[in-house]
Amino acid sequence: MHSHVIKLWRLRGVFTTITVIRCKAAVAWEPNKPLVIEEIEVAPPQSNEVRIKIVTTALCRTDLYFLSESTTKYTFPMVLGHEAAGIVESVGPGVTEFKPGDKVIPVFLPQCRECRFCKSPKTNLWKRCSRLNIFSRLTCRGKKLLQFANTSTFSEYTVVNQIAVAKIDPEAPLDKVCLIGCGVCSGYGAALNNARVEPGSSCAVFGLGAVGLAAVMGCKAAGAKTIIAVDTNPDKFHKARVLGATDFVNPNDHDKPISQVLSDMTNGGVDYSIECVGNVEVMRSALESCVKGWGVSVIVGYTDMHDFAARPIQLLSGRTWKGSKLGVTWISKDGVPEMVKAYMAKKLNLEEFITHKMTLNQVNDAIELMEQGIGIRTVLSVSPQQ
Amino acid sequence: MHSHVIKLWRLRGVFTTITVIRCKAAVAWEPNKPLVIEEIEVAPPQSNEVRIKIVTTALCRTDLYFLSESTTKYTFPMVLGHEAAGIVESVGPGVTEFKPGDKVIPVFLPQCRECRFCKSPKTNLWKRCSRLNIFSRLTCRGKKLLQFANTSTFSEYTVVNQIAVAKIDPEAPLDKVCLIGCGVCSGYGAALNNARVEPGSSCAVFGLGAVGLAAVMGCKAAGAKTIIAVDTNPDKFHKARVLGATDFVNPNDHDKPISQVLSDMTNGGVDYSIECVGNVEVMRSALESCVKGWGVSVIVGYTDMHDFAARPIQLLSGRTWKGSKLGVTWISKDGVPEMVKAYMAKKLNLEEFITHKMTLNQVNDAIELMEQGIGIRTVLSVSPQQ
Repeated sequence: MHSHVIKLWRLRGVFTTITVIRCKAAVAWEPNKPLVIEEIEVAPPQSNEVRIKIVTTALCRTDLYFLSESTTKYTFPMVLGHEAAGIVESVGPGVTEFKPGDKVIPVFLPQCRECRFCKSPKTNLWKRCSRLNIFSRLTCRGKKLLQFANTSTFSEYTVVNQIAVAKIDPEAPLDKVCLIGCGVCSGYGAALNNARVEPGSSCAVFGLGAVGLAAVMGCKAAGAKTIIAVDTNPDKFHKARVLGATDFVNPNDHDKPISQVLSDMTNGGVDYSIECVGNVEVMRSALESCVKGWGVSVIVGYTDMHDFAARPIQLLSGRTWKGSKLGVTWISKDGVPEMVKAYMAKKLNLEEFITHKMTLNQVNDAIELMEQGIGIRTVLSVSPQQ
Repeated sequence: MHSHVIKLWRLRGVFTTITVIRCKAAVAWEPNKPLVIEEIEVAPPQSNEVRIKIVTTALCRTDLYFLSESTTKYTFPMVLGHEAAGIVESVGPGVTEFKPGDKVIPVFLPQCRECRFCKSPKTNLWKRCSRLNIFSRLTCRGKKLLQFANTSTFSEYTVVNQIAVAKIDPEAPLDKVCLIGCGVCSGYGAALNNARVEPGSSCAVFGLGAVGLAAVMGCKAAGAKTIIAVDTNPDKFHKARVLGATDFVNPNDHDKPISQVLSDMTNGGVDYSIECVGNVEVMRSALESCVKGWGVSVIVGYTDMHDFAARPIQLLSGRTWKGSKLGVTWISKDGVPEMVKAYMAKKLNLEEFITHKMTLNQVNDAIELMEQGIGIRTVLSVSPQQ
């Protein structure tokens, strides 16, 4: 990392050196191509912004989705990455909550604490916190790099609005708690906050990637009696068992629809189902696997390529269909530090999720592992902690 | 009505005359054809069954649906009708809750109070109350007539299992409270029990038939501040206003998607939407009209011809999709008498729903009115009350 001073300014009586940082990042120049490790420029944080040294970042399937499949407005070039932990390097004017040296997790769901959505006790909302301005302080070879998911953590440094940064326990090991920035909260929170799994209930989790495994862990934390782990890859069942699953179903082992298999196992269907694949047919199966009358199915997997669908009778007979982002009611700036505390108190298992450790330089190897369905999470070390 | 004695038996010390009743009914011999007024035979009630003299029955769109459009297993010939009120004529062995002369409303959602579904505080469930046996005691010209919706009320007499009969206030006017048997509970209950509309909230009701108007009334009873009535027929707006609607939208008056129109009216979407049409495109609009973060959309309209569908982001951004039958948590035998009490206490407006009065002989005229979208409910008088 090289830097050069661009200005000196006085913040709360202290002279602070504000510089453009030149550092390493994995740049996605175009869709469906390997990322390229480049030297980029990270501009100083502006008003209400925080510049963060990313220490570790994990690779999440959503990164791959926006690299290769998406039909949304995301444009290239950009810096992917949104499940990370780091240390505040500098802050812009108006930032009082953070100071250099604070350990933080960037949160793709911002929380301003002031707008209609943040003030509602019901939810936190992706991209609707009305105070967030989409911006990017990253450039490479004269081109602006798009900020992905408000965070862009596949970079030694990134700049994030303070409403999208959560301050965490200074003792927290960043190579573990980075997982709390997305996958673990999404699955765990879907079980506890969206489905609101009740003690003694029966649950099914479809898809045993990091989010699905976290959902299994959430169902167990909520006291579910039966937790059925569903995946076409039986290699995933061992970790599911460690995290609390009681039964295991590989759809490839059955001729019947999976909803019928689960109905037969549970006297009419599960109380709660959680879809962690991002496939609209699996979403339908997950709904149909719920018991009539009160079954709740939560979609956590993401796709914007297709509609999900079902017959009206599926809802008319008493089921509820919900969705979850980051466990929705884990209000991001408030909830993420609580999840870190739970990990520090040994109430949360993160180690089980980390199957590979690499460096940012190896990000394309990590992508290949994920595309092959090998392992759960690869944690990339990005910058040294000191 | 003619009858002939088939046996005498002793019930709780009283000799009861049990007869086959010959009476008038409107028979649906085949799909898409007018009903035919026929003399039918109504066998005596068997174990746990109640034979009811139907005094009044209303025509509901669901009757037409199963007469003309359905792709379900319903077969002909059958006797339609499920929104009715009457008087117990005789009871079969094992019936202790009812006696001849009781005023009752047949309920298409049974409630045995003993099975897993009835015991759950969460729901009452159509056709899943495990104690219900589908049967019919009606025959005509030597053919068994299918019992529709457990009730078959387009007949001077019908036989219903006691778990599908609600005893009501003996003072209740049967030509009014018959509406509580389906449409009014479905809409009113969808607002109160499924959507759980909160005081001060904003609501949209799609479709202003009897169910939709009852939903408007339910939103008002729940204390909603804004109640937007949506229908392509502006003739329906007057009644909606009387029952509590505050705003009116005719989709034909707008070029924009109706969800955009409602979003513009409500700063981002309504808190609750209720679909009372039975059209899967309207179901989608109703969901998309809800505010992100916490919007709840309830499907009440019925169709089994098509899938409903939406993009996953609609749920992932925090909306919830539900369905309702008879207001779901209006447990039928318990809830229906409570609704009758509410009417007797002038807390419920039923008069506004009744636009036409006819006799059972005129049932095909009532069907034609409904097909032309004229009026809300036609109440058919079937038997004299005495």
